[in-house]
Amino acid sequence: MSTSAQIGVTGLAVMGRNLARNFARNGYTVAVHNRTVARTRELVERFGDEGDFVAAETAEEFVAALERPRRLVIMVKAGDPTDAVIKEFAPLLEPGDMIIDGGNAHFADTRRRERELREQGIHFVGTGISGGEEGALHGPSIMPGGSKESYASLGPMLEKISAKAKDGSPCVTHVGPDGAGHFVKMVHNGIEYADMQLIGEAYQLLRDVAGYSPAQIADIFRTWNTGRLDSYLIEITAEVLSHVDAATGEPFVDVVTDQAEQKGTGRWTVQIALDLGVPVSGIAEAVFARSLSGHAALREASRHLAGPRPSPLGEQEAAAFADRVEQALYASKIVSYTQGFHEIAAGSEEYGWGIDQGAVSAIWRAGCIIRAAFLDRIRAAYAGRPDLPSLLSDETFAREIEAAQDDWREVLAAAVRQGVPTPGFAAALAYYDGLRAPRLPAALTQGQRDFFGAHTYRRVDREGTFHTLWGGDRSEVQA
Amino acid sequence: MSTSAQIGVTGLAVMGRNLARNFARNGYTVAVHNRTVARTRELVERFGDEGDFVAAETAEEFVAALERPRRLVIMVKAGDPTDAVIKEFAPLLEPGDMIIDGGNAHFADTRRRERELREQGIHFVGTGISGGEEGALHGPSIMPGGSKESYASLGPMLEKISAKAKDGSPCVTHVGPDGAGHFVKMVHNGIEYADMQLIGEAYQLLRDVAGYSPAQIADIFRTWNTGRLDSYLIEITAEVLSHVDAATGEPFVDVVTDQAEQKGTGRWTVQIALDLGVPVSGIAEAVFARSLSGHAALREASRHLAGPRPSPLGEQEAAAFADRVEQALYASKIVSYTQGFHEIAAGSEEYGWGIDQGAVSAIWRAGCIIRAAFLDRIRAAYAGRPDLPSLLSDETFAREIEAAQDDWREVLAAAVRQGVPTPGFAAALAYYDGLRAPRLPAALTQGQRDFFGAHTYRRVDREGTFHTLWGGDRSEVQA
Repeated sequence: MSTSAQIGVTGLAVMGRNLARNFARNGYTVAVHNRTVARTRELVERFGDEGDFVAAETAEEFVAALERPRRLVIMVKAGDPTDAVIKEFAPLLEPGDMIIDGGNAHFADTRRRERELREQGIHFVGTGISGGEEGALHGPSIMPGGSKESYASLGPMLEKISAKAKDGSPCVTHVGPDGAGHFVKMVHNGIEYADMQLIGEAYQLLRDVAGYSPAQIADIFRTWNTGRLDSYLIEITAEVLSHVDAATGEPFVDVVTDQAEQKGTGRWTVQIALDLGVPVSGIAEAVFARSLSGHAALREASRHLAGPRPSPLGEQEAAAFADRVEQALYASKIVSYTQGFHEIAAGSEEYGWGIDQGAVSAIWRAGCIIRAAFLDRIRAAYAGRPDLPSLLSDETFAREIEAAQDDWREVLAAAVRQGVPTPGFAAALAYYDGLRAPRLPAALTQGQRDFFGAHTYRRVDREGTFHTLWGGDRSEVQA
Repeated sequence: MSTSAQIGVTGLAVMGRNLARNFARNGYTVAVHNRTVARTRELVERFGDEGDFVAAETAEEFVAALERPRRLVIMVKAGDPTDAVIKEFAPLLEPGDMIIDGGNAHFADTRRRERELREQGIHFVGTGISGGEEGALHGPSIMPGGSKESYASLGPMLEKISAKAKDGSPCVTHVGPDGAGHFVKMVHNGIEYADMQLIGEAYQLLRDVAGYSPAQIADIFRTWNTGRLDSYLIEITAEVLSHVDAATGEPFVDVVTDQAEQKGTGRWTVQIALDLGVPVSGIAEAVFARSLSGHAALREASRHLAGPRPSPLGEQEAAAFADRVEQALYASKIVSYTQGFHEIAAGSEEYGWGIDQGAVSAIWRAGCIIRAAFLDRIRAAYAGRPDLPSLLSDETFAREIEAAQDDWREVLAAAVRQGVPTPGFAAALAYYDGLRAPRLPAALTQGQRDFFGAHTYRRVDREGTFHTLWGGDRSEVQA
């Protein structure tokens, strides 16, 4: 066994296998290892001609196959399996070696693991990888955290295997220390939930209010995909909507059970945002919409509830309405990304990560699920003004929302009147109107809290904290 | 020192002090203890004539003063202070003794503490107490968890000091084992957040769209308080809105900084709901609205954003609009409570608590912050049908929403068009329309997930899990 492999991948399910192949296809010698040896053999048998693989049957062999400092990529299920693999390999490693966790780990776990391994002198590189199986093979968007030192060693390899944006730049950057990479990947997924929910609402409106068929809606999405909404998710929406079920001849979307499933990252995005005090209402509504859809018994018990049924529009009105929906979708999308980037900024501040938001948007331009022309515009916004308070403060986005908002409001008003559920559009608009409001009813909330719990309040006209003696003569005291 | 005290309270800040006085006023001998002895002395000096207090200066004295089995109430800040007090007292107790934690603990902490103390034979009774200082003194709503055995001993005392509903029944019940009491208290607070947010939105609409002054709006709330919205929060809203700031002569609500603060329970309610897969969008929007209001710099940077400014209605239209807002507020309130009770049901199922939802609504009828005539109607709904799938399945509520919904939709459409942020109203309506929808875009979501991640889907027409070969000939395979 030679010690010639520049990188090793353990965990050869489809994501790990494809990532290993990606490294090999890019000219790296890749040590491969799996708990079940058969999988390792299968990889080499089927894909051995794609590049140089070193098949390792044991952990010791695997580690021995790697050149130093070792680069060891873990591609196993997030959670306990990751800890188990670390526990197996860490004792075999030496100071300066790197463990790269490419799973969907919770960033708090990544922080813990990084801290523990740092004591041994091992670099733990929690790395978000987006793009699914195809991305792993042909070029994903890669979000590594961990030390600068580890990135100096790993970066060039990751840049080689990553997706490339249209301008040729690789979709990978050193996101920041310890859990920064997994944090950013989590928010990426949260934004993905929101994007999908907004697309779903647009679809439902085009179907129920405009009266279009799935095939017609697919065409509309195809048209949208040539404009500012140009993105992978819009593209595949058209594919899914135009697909016809072979068994029934019905539109595919009509034979699929309308109960959406989810893994953990969307939920985490909201939970962490709550801890950070960041309003991510659009992402939350997307997560809730999925869980609501899955409550089959509750929905069954609620179908009889009273409400309007939309009456489809005529042909010309429908076309005009579709244009409005595009505006509403685009404006809501700007809000989703505003919320997501706010969460990244807040996380970066909380944990001292120093995340460059422009760099994050740049590496999402290709390879990942939310890849889109839109991300290049976000990159440009941060390039123009790195301290942008929020995406809505970017002049271009603000102007676009200004142009979109009448339609946005009309579409939402129509949905509300006709009984089509649009929680994502509604949350986005409420956030927008909330941010720009000269005054919010939060003042009343503070008054109520002071009344029932003596929680005190501040005044607009002078410094200090105050309490009104509500149960007494209602005079004000300094608290 | 006699061992005559039936109950002891340690932690004599205002909540603990008032609770101790409440026990004493009801004829119990109460041992009182505080880390700083001065506070114990002060209590006895000021309120000693209200009943029988035994002032204990040390932990040992305190424990010695209690009759067996001992009932020891902890009223300290939730979190580490609670653990510290338990650590101090537990070694002094004997099997069969009870520790009652009356703080706002996270139910997961309560579950841990209950498990640890059970090993010592000590009953740990995590107890939600709502009603603020006044409630603690005159009768709060009490939500004890813990063992049945502990409730048999404690229940009669808690019933005596608790608030009483109009029909005379005490606002306390044995909620369920271990963390059930604190869980239910958490959801109570989450609902309280939603109630306050909905009231805030109603206020803002009456102010900006109808053009009423705070004093006029106070009168409207006073009127509402004589109807189905009759509740403590509506009552104090009128008080806050009619209050005039002495320093400026301005309406009080206009001199208070419009940045709402929060403690942890609203946030917890949403985070736990996400773990349980329960959509609590109304509560989430209430929490987000508070955090949004607090982002002063972001709001400052967003004030220039384009949008309509509402133009107040004429006198007659305004009155009609106010009636519509009442409908919208009431319908949204039904949805908030539907979501909150769903979370309680899901928690009860997850942890095997066997919570009686009717009993929970019954003990919220008086004493607590969300006390309202409305709670008696929820009690009645569960009494009529204990297995109610959701509050919306109750015929009375469903009929009321049916009657309210045209106005609900009109109010929301007006808010959307005129740029008044109404995230709570919007989330409630989207939830309602989502639940009753014959089909949701979740089918499209599943199709997208299958396309980019091979996550599979189910079909409406046959059993099994399927995957379409999107990258191939698009035939369907059983997964």
